[in-house]
Amino acid sequence: MTERRAVNNLSLYKERFERVLSDYLQAYPVKFSPVWDAMVYAVCAGGKRVRPALAYMGAKIAGGSMERADKVALGVEFIHNYSLIHDDLPCMDDDDLRRGRPTVHKAFGEGTAVLAGDALLNLAFECVGGEGETAKYIAKQSGMCGMAGGQCLDLANTGNAGVQGEEWLDKINSLKTSALFKAALAGGAMICGADGELICALEEYADCLGKVFQIVDDILDVQSSAEVLGKSAGQDEKNGKVTYVSLLGLDGAKQKARAINDEGKAALEKFGAAAGELIDFADLLLGRVK
Amino acid sequence: MTERRAVNNLSLYKERFERVLSDYLQAYPVKFSPVWDAMVYAVCAGGKRVRPALAYMGAKIAGGSMERADKVALGVEFIHNYSLIHDDLPCMDDDDLRRGRPTVHKAFGEGTAVLAGDALLNLAFECVGGEGETAKYIAKQSGMCGMAGGQCLDLANTGNAGVQGEEWLDKINSLKTSALFKAALAGGAMICGADGELICALEEYADCLGKVFQIVDDILDVQSSAEVLGKSAGQDEKNGKVTYVSLLGLDGAKQKARAINDEGKAALEKFGAAAGELIDFADLLLGRVK
Repeated sequence: MTERRAVNNLSLYKERFERVLSDYLQAYPVKFSPVWDAMVYAVCAGGKRVRPALAYMGAKIAGGSMERADKVALGVEFIHNYSLIHDDLPCMDDDDLRRGRPTVHKAFGEGTAVLAGDALLNLAFECVGGEGETAKYIAKQSGMCGMAGGQCLDLANTGNAGVQGEEWLDKINSLKTSALFKAALAGGAMICGADGELICALEEYADCLGKVFQIVDDILDVQSSAEVLGKSAGQDEKNGKVTYVSLLGLDGAKQKARAINDEGKAALEKFGAAAGELIDFADLLLGRVK
Repeated sequence: MTERRAVNNLSLYKERFERVLSDYLQAYPVKFSPVWDAMVYAVCAGGKRVRPALAYMGAKIAGGSMERADKVALGVEFIHNYSLIHDDLPCMDDDDLRRGRPTVHKAFGEGTAVLAGDALLNLAFECVGGEGETAKYIAKQSGMCGMAGGQCLDLANTGNAGVQGEEWLDKINSLKTSALFKAALAGGAMICGADGELICALEEYADCLGKVFQIVDDILDVQSSAEVLGKSAGQDEKNGKVTYVSLLGLDGAKQKARAINDEGKAALEKFGAAAGELIDFADLLLGRVK
């Protein structure tokens, strides 16, 4: 029941976001090829649109409109996609496949991929730049204190499996994944005028959600085929990366995901029925590896 | 006389900026190696600090304090340096030398260079993100409608000397260089509450200044040694790039620079003595190729 509701809501958010995104890109005044084409190729590849959905859920729990959160949804999705494009580069993770298609540098060349990522990050701040506090918050979660910081730690470790332990991996995932989940969820609430208590609770929830998301990703990398994943499977082991599965085994990783999921849901308890949607969403995410 | 005044002012601005920059970096809470080291290596390499100086001059002509413009100065200099790091990458201009030292990817590796650029762009918006209208304006000048757009055009042309003419080159330089000059100068004025008339005039002046700056750069690339430039000389010809010198010859390029410089100064005429500093600065810049 609740899982079905979460799936329905998610598809409504996705539908709205695809429309908002398409309108935004169509109206954008400057479209230099081939970089613009590469940006569109990356951003319009579908995907689950988890971050935009979080932005909308943040607006909702703060009592705001989805329209008010459109900018945050666009901004965080642009940031997410710039990071994917740059992460896939030969000098980073060197991945050829993403969402079932060639990665941006494979399809457009490396120079274009670097610029497309840069332009998407700039575009994110064109979207949210006028929003004062919210824009600053998103920049912080996207930068060295957040996502980019996590990529730094990740890059420094690649090829050194075994050097770092579970605590270190928790930190990486909190930075690499949770930070942008926070930007989306708390950013969506912030732009709608949420108070500090709600923002803090949403941050705690988003931190747990990001960690669960990453553990689930590690599990799926081992369990799934490239067809299901839409990207090359078994990449983590190939790249010698430390993952929750390599540290804790499959069952241990699943157990950890369940525990963190409970923690995240507990952070929202005091908000009662208003938090129902976010609780359902956390369970839906975890359900991917049941 | 006026040249000496411009040089003095520039060195005062530079002095202030180096202090502000050093304080900002020191106080920054998260410093993951080696990416942080690469960011500092790039940003603290000296340079003329033209963009921070423009931000301070913008504040001054708008009747604001230099302190108010510090964020803009930091933001535009971070953006400038991210673009240099990414421009120098092997998949872009493939340059080994910058400001007399190995480029970031030569000193730290490509992956670190990509991330250092990304983190600097994020840092720029952490600095100015809270500033509403000014932040949005800077993002626009930095993105597809401005600097990044110019890099797109530039990348698309590399290796195709002769395909594009003077008008096309004007457009590239207006985007690649002038846009960030606008972000600095008009951004510095905007954050101090400048009105629309002043902003428009500063934009026109900055557009000319950026073009002159680029023409002067083309000329110096031909005339100077690597020692004087602090980067490899003769790179443009080596890379098969269309430049003002390749299109107009040395004398033609100098003549064009003088004409555009006059145009830029004319845009500020109505502001009388208040614009004296910017007029001097334009002449100083042009004087580099006398």
